[in-house]
Amino acid sequence: MSRKIRYGMVGGGRGAFIGGVHRIAANMDGQIELVCGAFSSDPQKSKDSGADLYLPAERCYGSFEEMIQKEAALPADKRMDFVSIVTPNHMHFPPAKAALEAGFHVLSDKPATFDLTESKALVDIVKKTGKLYGLTHNYTGYPLVKEARDMIKAGKLGKIRKVVVEYPQGWLATKLEDSGQKQAGWRTDPKRSGAAGCIGDIGTHAENLAEYITGLHIKELAADITAFVEGRALDDDGNVLLRFDNGAKGVLHASQISVGEENNLNIRVYGEKGGIEWHQNEPNTMLVKWLDQPMQVYRTANGYLGKNAAAATRTPPAHPEGYLEAFANIYKNFASHIRAVIAGTAPDEVALDYPKIGDGVRGMAFIEAVVKSSQANAAWTKLEV
Amino acid sequence: MSRKIRYGMVGGGRGAFIGGVHRIAANMDGQIELVCGAFSSDPQKSKDSGADLYLPAERCYGSFEEMIQKEAALPADKRMDFVSIVTPNHMHFPPAKAALEAGFHVLSDKPATFDLTESKALVDIVKKTGKLYGLTHNYTGYPLVKEARDMIKAGKLGKIRKVVVEYPQGWLATKLEDSGQKQAGWRTDPKRSGAAGCIGDIGTHAENLAEYITGLHIKELAADITAFVEGRALDDDGNVLLRFDNGAKGVLHASQISVGEENNLNIRVYGEKGGIEWHQNEPNTMLVKWLDQPMQVYRTANGYLGKNAAAATRTPPAHPEGYLEAFANIYKNFASHIRAVIAGTAPDEVALDYPKIGDGVRGMAFIEAVVKSSQANAAWTKLEV
Amino acid sequence: MSRKIRYGMVGGGRGAFIGGVHRIAANMDGQIELVCGAFSSDPQKSKDSGADLYLPAERCYGSFEEMIQKEAALPADKRMDFVSIVTPNHMHFPPAKAALEAGFHVLSDKPATFDLTESKALVDIVKKTGKLYGLTHNYTGYPLVKEARDMIKAGKLGKIRKVVVEYPQGWLATKLEDSGQKQAGWRTDPKRSGAAGCIGDIGTHAENLAEYITGLHIKELAADITAFVEGRALDDDGNVLLRFDNGAKGVLHASQISVGEENNLNIRVYGEKGGIEWHQNEPNTMLVKWLDQPMQVYRTANGYLGKNAAAATRTPPAHPEGYLEAFANIYKNFASHIRAVIAGTAPDEVALDYPKIGDGVRGMAFIEAVVKSSQANAAWTKLEV
Amino acid sequence: MSRKIRYGMVGGGRGAFIGGVHRIAANMDGQIELVCGAFSSDPQKSKDSGADLYLPAERCYGSFEEMIQKEAALPADKRMDFVSIVTPNHMHFPPAKAALEAGFHVLSDKPATFDLTESKALVDIVKKTGKLYGLTHNYTGYPLVKEARDMIKAGKLGKIRKVVVEYPQGWLATKLEDSGQKQAGWRTDPKRSGAAGCIGDIGTHAENLAEYITGLHIKELAADITAFVEGRALDDDGNVLLRFDNGAKGVLHASQISVGEENNLNIRVYGEKGGIEWHQNEPNTMLVKWLDQPMQVYRTANGYLGKNAAAATRTPPAHPEGYLEAFANIYKNFASHIRAVIAGTAPDEVALDYPKIGDGVRGMAFIEAVVKSSQANAAWTKLEV
Repeated sequence: MSRKIRYGMVGGGRGAFIGGVHRIAANMDGQIELVCGAFSSDPQKSKDSGADLYLPAERCYGSFEEMIQKEAALPADKRMDFVSIVTPNHMHFPPAKAALEAGFHVLSDKPATFDLTESKALVDIVKKTGKLYGLTHNYTGYPLVKEARDMIKAGKLGKIRKVVVEYPQGWLATKLEDSGQKQAGWRTDPKRSGAAGCIGDIGTHAENLAEYITGLHIKELAADITAFVEGRALDDDGNVLLRFDNGAKGVLHASQISVGEENNLNIRVYGEKGGIEWHQNEPNTMLVKWLDQPMQVYRTANGYLGKNAAAATRTPPAHPEGYLEAFANIYKNFASHIRAVIAGTAPDEVALDYPKIGDGVRGMAFIEAVVKSSQANAAWTKLEV
Repeated sequence: MSRKIRYGMVGGGRGAFIGGVHRIAANMDGQIELVCGAFSSDPQKSKDSGADLYLPAERCYGSFEEMIQKEAALPADKRMDFVSIVTPNHMHFPPAKAALEAGFHVLSDKPATFDLTESKALVDIVKKTGKLYGLTHNYTGYPLVKEARDMIKAGKLGKIRKVVVEYPQGWLATKLEDSGQKQAGWRTDPKRSGAAGCIGDIGTHAENLAEYITGLHIKELAADITAFVEGRALDDDGNVLLRFDNGAKGVLHASQISVGEENNLNIRVYGEKGGIEWHQNEPNTMLVKWLDQPMQVYRTANGYLGKNAAAATRTPPAHPEGYLEAFANIYKNFASHIRAVIAGTAPDEVALDYPKIGDGVRGMAFIEAVVKSSQANAAWTKLEV
Repeated sequence: MSRKIRYGMVGGGRGAFIGGVHRIAANMDGQIELVCGAFSSDPQKSKDSGADLYLPAERCYGSFEEMIQKEAALPADKRMDFVSIVTPNHMHFPPAKAALEAGFHVLSDKPATFDLTESKALVDIVKKTGKLYGLTHNYTGYPLVKEARDMIKAGKLGKIRKVVVEYPQGWLATKLEDSGQKQAGWRTDPKRSGAAGCIGDIGTHAENLAEYITGLHIKELAADITAFVEGRALDDDGNVLLRFDNGAKGVLHASQISVGEENNLNIRVYGEKGGIEWHQNEPNTMLVKWLDQPMQVYRTANGYLGKNAAAATRTPPAHPEGYLEAFANIYKNFASHIRAVIAGTAPDEVALDYPKIGDGVRGMAFIEAVVKSSQANAAWTKLEV
Repeated sequence: MSRKIRYGMVGGGRGAFIGGVHRIAANMDGQIELVCGAFSSDPQKSKDSGADLYLPAERCYGSFEEMIQKEAALPADKRMDFVSIVTPNHMHFPPAKAALEAGFHVLSDKPATFDLTESKALVDIVKKTGKLYGLTHNYTGYPLVKEARDMIKAGKLGKIRKVVVEYPQGWLATKLEDSGQKQAGWRTDPKRSGAAGCIGDIGTHAENLAEYITGLHIKELAADITAFVEGRALDDDGNVLLRFDNGAKGVLHASQISVGEENNLNIRVYGEKGGIEWHQNEPNTMLVKWLDQPMQVYRTANGYLGKNAAAATRTPPAHPEGYLEAFANIYKNFASHIRAVIAGTAPDEVALDYPKIGDGVRGMAFIEAVVKSSQANAAWTKLEV
């Protein structure tokens, strides 16, 4: 098929953050093309934002409903293939539902929805429509995260016993939302963010990473979440004990008040025979630990890595790839899956390697379990989907 | 006073580990002299062990009782000043009690006693006898640990909100105790180790470090401890949620089954204005984090450090000091305090900076609270002394 | 101007490495569009390569001459704005000359030309044609490299005294070129690589980085270069003493036989008041050192950085950016400069911040000086342009 | 033999630095005893200094001559076994000569002597007297340095091709000697330090470390040394190209004006099959690099290390040992050798593993070659002993 995959964007107008990230991720490999957008609920702002991106005015829509309706009416060789959703959390479900039901694939920013109920509804919609649904749990896009997952799946670490996953940030250590900072604004607002703040925004990434790498499910958890900054409605810090379905134990903690921490998502997993350690802020290094042998330093792009890590890599060793490339890997695999659907062929393993609605539901269930547990003074609470 | 401070050792005969560490710590500064010992309950082994150390046979005793009795009978210019106790946990209290009551100061390996009851009894004995009692929570002997404490005390980080303290090891990931390894043997044996394994052996170091640095007390905790290795009677891993008396929250986890981890005690503390991070395995570096300024790297022995850090340092920057020097700082300060007592003068701040029976009681209370909480499925449990 | 900047590529067909990097760099920000290419001297391979990139067959040319001629004949709203040259070294000059003389701007992979003579000729051509010429000394595209330069320019480190710049790799530690590996093949071939191997391929990056950051020029050098792998015609390792025009001294060493090194370009600069240290393999961290204060850790994307670093950044702190983003910064600034030229406005400081032909000439002069010095047993040799 | 080895110290009175280090090193293992000293050329200061160390006044001498004479006259069971020399460089040779000729073993601080001529004379004296002579090139005392040496000796890295050894410090970046700082004073004074400043003080450590680890000899060198601080008589920075006797090449640079560097001696060695990297400021970690396998992280005290590293280790993994322990290893091995001499038995391999007069001569030859080369504008100069 000699054409790029086409997409339209919901959200991501001037002044937004994550929309720009999605566009870079889509641009990177030259396989995907932005053809339209509902960048803002203000039609003029949507047009202006689209003009910045060299889009024709007629494909810059004033609402996602308009976009979906008008794009659906375009000829097949012109209309978008999928919708990318980059709005705040409360606006994830409506456009996803509308797009899927209109026959478009959907790639959504995380968390999947505003609450667990919505995410379960989305499961049914995805199933019913048969369209593809991807979720940008982008940290799973890193090559060494894939390598860790593959090593554990292959049994190299033995049965997993312990998981420590952390996501410390410090940017909300003061009441930044009062300054008018847009990112802080909606993330600390229960109406737009959901039942949790820190836990919803970044705790879910930690949960997703732990389950992705280990292949295990969190069975139950005991959580103690806190809003440290006076007057803040949602948690800005949370500490969680974990029990996994295979008997492994763990700790998950996330924070937005850990002064001086930037975006240090990291994970350590220990099995009976070995362990791994990975830090998102130095993502091209993974420490691999053994019972009686020296620790090894796995590095992105080396020949000793497996095929999934290799497929997620664009440059040779120590030509560092980062956050945008990992994000782009979600887009790349999602687009490959769409190509297979269009071609009517079976997608390969790599094309299928992106987070889906099932991950989204588990993320929402995690948020609900954490909030419920914390309200019950850290009582053990099942993570049920 | 122109003489060295003299001590006798209980335990630490041939084949022991921690006894040798104590002797190096005592030797290091040339201020303290080993003059006698009850190195083993086997009198011949005690003599042989003492001979290795160039001690005369007549001061190598077959029991601590004998040592205390005979040393007490020696003239003042010859007898030991203090007793160093380096036996397994169940044998800490009896010689401590006997030595104190016979008029000797005591420097004991941690934990202070076998259980909380004993440690409370020891409080009374120390009080009653007026003798000095020190506890080798040696990790507080590091210069940068002292600097962290002093920075927090001076308010540089603002009100403390969050503490993450970890003590991962991997050496008990297999059933090493079955191999006859002596250190593994007693540490996994409830009769010699106490109510907890990993939590007693190393979790207490984490607890002590967190309280020492922050100046806070753990108010209550929720713990989930596990014996992962089949057939092991005591925990080899534990995850604990913490609540401090000032409202700060935290996580403490310790492990002896984290494959590939050596002895990586580490702590992060976050206040309203700044944070610190310190790792025992690179002890001469401390990261200091700020709201809007670049992270700083504090390094041992530099002129910008405070007087307590300076007093705990023997060499210039990047002439790395380590575990033995930190341990020696406990001995050094304890000996300085004894010198002050002998001289009848007031000890200075540095001489008083070593862990005491109060730390010991809190350690024992921590162990008991963790075990109790874990037995109650991680119910919040007060740490009461 | 509401359109993307358009470019055509010379080289970079199927199987090439650096061509793909250039395309990603051009794609990333959605400001630049690939519209044509002479991807291979084999016309069919050029067409196939272009088809992979969704280009129409009629704009996939069989030679750069054809491309330049036919594109020049296209209407202004369709033809390319600039040519990107990604061929081996011996094929840099001819298309650059042809493109410039046909009125196209040029962005070339480094080194600028095959030898110093060619690069001096290119200076004249650039001058005469008035077209823009950029050179992808991509490592100067990193935000913290720009910050280092700006700090030094502002005098924060005081007068510069010492520079240590290293570029160790290990990928040519064995005779890889004999295996048919394409990258190894041309780099070790004097006919395609030029007078130097390692020094030309990566030593020039080190030279460029040192001069870019310090704002100094290397005045003279004493070099000892070696071909360690038996049968290799060009150097695979080189050690160079440096003297700068302000009296500073330095060391530059580059290697392709340093087993286990990936691509560890790094630099340390020391002035009278402070120093900086930066490693390309962890490019989002820069150590800043002071006389009497703790070392600081500068991190990409933080508010304390200057405007040039900020302009070269796409994501928040610890959403790591890497090699491709740094590369893209060259493309981005070059395209901004072209936009200014098209608009007839003055480019801003950021748009001008990319390596130019002057850097290219210095790079070629460096190579010639190193080779000459080494042939004279490391005699001091001027770096003259 | 049931007694400690006894020594007397020359130098190291109140206010000195390295004397205290030697005493700690000697104390550490409880095998060596300070019995006398000529701590100062001022007899009263010598007595006062000795009193601080609990020595009887009659064994605190006013000169090394007096010490040697009077100690020689003491009965064998009382007199010192060896002399430790901790004076500035110009005072190394005289007491060494006197002690050896009086029948005492000598352990001297480095460099061995004031100049090459003296060191050659010392070779003859050592030979003639048959006494032991050790030199505290203490950095060879680190366990991982020994492991590196043993790995290379065993051929694990293949034929060595490249060596990079660095010794950057920053403490003399300003004219500290003018402030009265004692350490800065003699080190920058040609009368007390010798022909070189930085190169003599720390460059020799780098030279010694490179030769110790690789087992190679530097054949010739090209050096460019500089006194950056105005008015300083001796070099405070030096850059040196190296050629080894097996054809390997290298770079050595040392500096005392590299602002913010503490004491970062470090080395990288690359052979045909692998490489090692070690940094003195994190001495318990050594990176081991391979052609096609992940880098390994060797850590002190692990079971996978060889016997020489094990013999140089006192504590388990990540109970970090440092500078003082490495220093103590020189004392320990030297004392073991003395014990063997006393016992009339053959010393084992470990007892012989300390730097000797041969190392001292090479160090002095290195200094002279560097100075000579630099005076000849970095002409290649043989390192001849």
